[in-house]
Amino acid sequence: MKNVFPVLAWLPKYNSKFLMSDFVAGLTVGLTAIPQAIAYATVAGLLPQYGLYSAFMGCFVYIIFGTCKDITVGPTAITALMVQSHVSGSPDYAVLCCFLSGCIILCLGLLNLGVLVRFISIPVTTGFTMAAAITIASGQINNLFGIRSTSNEFIASWYNFFTHFNETRTNDAALGITTLIILLMMRKVKDLKCGRYKMFTKYISLSRNALAVLVGILLCYLLRNDDRLPFKVSGEISPGLPAFEWPPFSTTVNGTIIPFKTMVSNLGASLISIPLISILESVAIAKAFSKGRLVDATQEMIALGVSNIMGGFVSSMPITGSFTRTAINNSSGVKTPLGGAVTGTLVLMALAFLTKTFYYIPKATLAAIIIGAMIFMVEYDRVAEIWRSKKIDFIPFLVTVLACLFWSLEYGIVAGILANMTFILYKSARPIIIISKEEINCVQVGIVEVMETLCYSSAEYLKYQIMHFTSSQAEGNEIKLIILKIQDNSSIDSSVALNILSLEKDLSMLECRLICWNWNVCAAGVIYRLHSKGNQLLKYGKSYIKLIDDLKLSPSFITCDIEGSLN
Amino acid sequence: MKNVFPVLAWLPKYNSKFLMSDFVAGLTVGLTAIPQAIAYATVAGLLPQYGLYSAFMGCFVYIIFGTCKDITVGPTAITALMVQSHVSGSPDYAVLCCFLSGCIILCLGLLNLGVLVRFISIPVTTGFTMAAAITIASGQINNLFGIRSTSNEFIASWYNFFTHFNETRTNDAALGITTLIILLMMRKVKDLKCGRYKMFTKYISLSRNALAVLVGILLCYLLRNDDRLPFKVSGEISPGLPAFEWPPFSTTVNGTIIPFKTMVSNLGASLISIPLISILESVAIAKAFSKGRLVDATQEMIALGVSNIMGGFVSSMPITGSFTRTAINNSSGVKTPLGGAVTGTLVLMALAFLTKTFYYIPKATLAAIIIGAMIFMVEYDRVAEIWRSKKIDFIPFLVTVLACLFWSLEYGIVAGILANMTFILYKSARPIIIISKEEINCVQVGIVEVMETLCYSSAEYLKYQIMHFTSSQAEGNEIKLIILKIQDNSSIDSSVALNILSLEKDLSMLECRLICWNWNVCAAGVIYRLHSKGNQLLKYGKSYIKLIDDLKLSPSFITCDIEGSLN
Repeated sequence: MKNVFPVLAWLPKYNSKFLMSDFVAGLTVGLTAIPQAIAYATVAGLLPQYGLYSAFMGCFVYIIFGTCKDITVGPTAITALMVQSHVSGSPDYAVLCCFLSGCIILCLGLLNLGVLVRFISIPVTTGFTMAAAITIASGQINNLFGIRSTSNEFIASWYNFFTHFNETRTNDAALGITTLIILLMMRKVKDLKCGRYKMFTKYISLSRNALAVLVGILLCYLLRNDDRLPFKVSGEISPGLPAFEWPPFSTTVNGTIIPFKTMVSNLGASLISIPLISILESVAIAKAFSKGRLVDATQEMIALGVSNIMGGFVSSMPITGSFTRTAINNSSGVKTPLGGAVTGTLVLMALAFLTKTFYYIPKATLAAIIIGAMIFMVEYDRVAEIWRSKKIDFIPFLVTVLACLFWSLEYGIVAGILANMTFILYKSARPIIIISKEEINCVQVGIVEVMETLCYSSAEYLKYQIMHFTSSQAEGNEIKLIILKIQDNSSIDSSVALNILSLEKDLSMLECRLICWNWNVCAAGVIYRLHSKGNQLLKYGKSYIKLIDDLKLSPSFITCDIEGSLN
Repeated sequence: MKNVFPVLAWLPKYNSKFLMSDFVAGLTVGLTAIPQAIAYATVAGLLPQYGLYSAFMGCFVYIIFGTCKDITVGPTAITALMVQSHVSGSPDYAVLCCFLSGCIILCLGLLNLGVLVRFISIPVTTGFTMAAAITIASGQINNLFGIRSTSNEFIASWYNFFTHFNETRTNDAALGITTLIILLMMRKVKDLKCGRYKMFTKYISLSRNALAVLVGILLCYLLRNDDRLPFKVSGEISPGLPAFEWPPFSTTVNGTIIPFKTMVSNLGASLISIPLISILESVAIAKAFSKGRLVDATQEMIALGVSNIMGGFVSSMPITGSFTRTAINNSSGVKTPLGGAVTGTLVLMALAFLTKTFYYIPKATLAAIIIGAMIFMVEYDRVAEIWRSKKIDFIPFLVTVLACLFWSLEYGIVAGILANMTFILYKSARPIIIISKEEINCVQVGIVEVMETLCYSSAEYLKYQIMHFTSSQAEGNEIKLIILKIQDNSSIDSSVALNILSLEKDLSMLECRLICWNWNVCAAGVIYRLHSKGNQLLKYGKSYIKLIDDLKLSPSFITCDIEGSLN
């Protein structure tokens, strides 16, 4: 029970000292969560309230199912971007996507299939994050300058920016750029050595997004002239809490009813990529903040899955662990997952009482917050590390970045994963095989050592290498025996076994014997079961000399004193 | 030059003794090639003459480029079936497919990418052949009984057979079934021990298809009643040789001109699967008949590519090495590839003079020939071998068979390949890691040996295994040092290196050191370049004791006499 509901483990031990810490941390996170939620709704192309709808359920659910005190589950820039291409019809797509992603994540968690994300290597992850950050930031560049734009895509956004640059609105541009610069500076404030003001500057730095929004709202409200506002704003936010109801299993676009099946097929590949990316983000964050403790990835996936499923009931878009807010939570000194309750309540209160105020949030402020976050989402150090440590790993990185930027985020990561998988497949087709030649008892022997597991893709390679070695010997110096050694513990498959049997036949035409030397029972069994004469191939022993005697390969009339005892 | 044009190597040494052997073999192959060509045109859903158009160019081209004396290039049942779904619009699709397949095969050959077929394992090949044979035979079951049918697919054919069984035409059914039984018996005739008639029965057996066609034609001609024929026939064959002209880069279907681009996109995945299957068949045959000689797969692919390209100029459908006819060629005692010239000339003469006669070939005879060939194309022994040797290899086999039968041949083989690749990927994610615990100089040491190459998919697995091992130790018995050993010759990628660095951090929280012990320069370099403190991780030496002393891990006040010298 305590494994599935970790809350049962820590809640009974809860004491009043934790309460204050959790309250302050929850509040700080909440002050970031609200502006980010509204901003990420813009990224997803949804009305601002959907961001707030997404920002509370995860906090509450994670208290019950979560294992890591720091993690904050909510809308993130990447999931917002990934859902964006589907919501043009109706926001119901985002909500359904949230619910279904939750179901998929939960299933993957229960089936322990979270290990699938291990096939997303660090170069691919880094490339994906970089491309997503660039795409998201590019999508906001027009809003930052008050230029009208309809697209959030990388190329379209910059094309729009340069072709419509003369439509820049001075007010918006000034506010946007100033906010961005101040945000970037405030991020650095907490690193300053200010002695006694350290706590103060730290919390100022942590709640900088809320401050930016507050300043934006104030400016917008105070500088308004009759009903004309000085800045472009996000528009009305419908007040009140979302209804708790079933996710939309059908929707209406332009008067046409779209059934469940069509909605699912429209969501398509996103129903695989969004859950996988969500798992990847959430588990990676859990690991980053686990400090040497083992992360229970299955439980994290259950928490994330239930969060998304419950989110589907309150009109949420897909949610996952947010790196920014988790870091804020951690540095604000949170003690237990209960901090999430404060964050969630704050979001709910904002929805209940502050929606009128949020009307005045300038778009340029939101753009500055988003761009400010994206600049630090790119892992520059990581890119340098990949380049330094192994140049070839730059290929999957570049494939991912370019395919994500110029094709689409979903297919980009798939392209990166596939590009990287070719490394594994290539390696499997080219195992390390060491072939050496020895003269034992006047018999030329080829000793073949396979250093890795053989599988069907390497079967012909092995055969080719041995045939090439055997047939390339000079005349009068022919190899009479090939001794094939494989690793302990490693088995072979039927393709390898069949190739070895056909290799034996081919070698016999060159009057050369093939012996599988000291194979473990698992690999030997495959050969043995395949062929009634299989046991002629399999030999065990300690000395090659005895083997050669047994095989009667040594010419008996020549006396040799060469000793070739090997282990 | 002799590598690219092997003809230059053997033609100067040609002598009159070879001539007779080559002539007899070429004639025997031709007598099989003609009925098979007409039959496989039916399988492809093309008019009979297209089969003959496909059957001569490969023979001539292979003389110049081929390396293996036995191989006969021409239409085969599988390529016919694979092209069948595209020709309903126009036979031009088959011809264009032939030309483009040739270009692709040639490119793959020149780029040495023929190794790609190594990823098609024996279980997948066996399953594909089996499914193709079943599909082709099923497609002919209606013709065998004289039932009208429009489909060649597995389910549709049998559905049509059972629902229209009452439409069976007695004449056709009698001819078809009798022919089939006689063909199967004649196949066995050559195994009989007839002493002096051995040569005679051998050639009767080898030319049984031609005899069956001859008997069918005679029966059909003699039993005709005015203009009513006793059997269903294939229909008119337009007489004369095909024009030598550019392949059809556009075509007209129902009065609409279809441009090149649309034709290519209609051919779609077939432009990948047909070349790959052609290479697979052709190279596999070359290997089967090479008798211990190394097969120059690149040259075989060049020969096959040029054959298909030239075939595109004479209205051929895709062609590849035919196992049946190659076997006949071999057992007829062919000496050089020149035998192909006789076969090719025979086909040309049939086209020039015999088309009127071919009008009388009963469909039931062709169906019997096809079904008779398909029964022996299924490798029953192979299936048994796979089952015996390794049960798990039955999964890709079954996936291939079922997907090919119930989905489509192209996607079926892809599904099988992907199912089998999961084995490689799973293996790469779960390398063999041996962790043992030793007490050296009173220090608890964990010795981790990785038996296979580490790559990104196994990076987290390694980390998890070590963390799990370290944190699961009883109190007072904590591991103070983890010694990580990898294989000689094997390198690591940046994901593994980054995971090892993060593992070191996590271990340091448990007050445990991590040492990469005696790593080769290639793998060590990745760690070293990544981290300025990387060389603290990397240690070299012969004795663990010295390492523990150097690291100052041993409590100096305890005197230990445990020696732990290891290589």
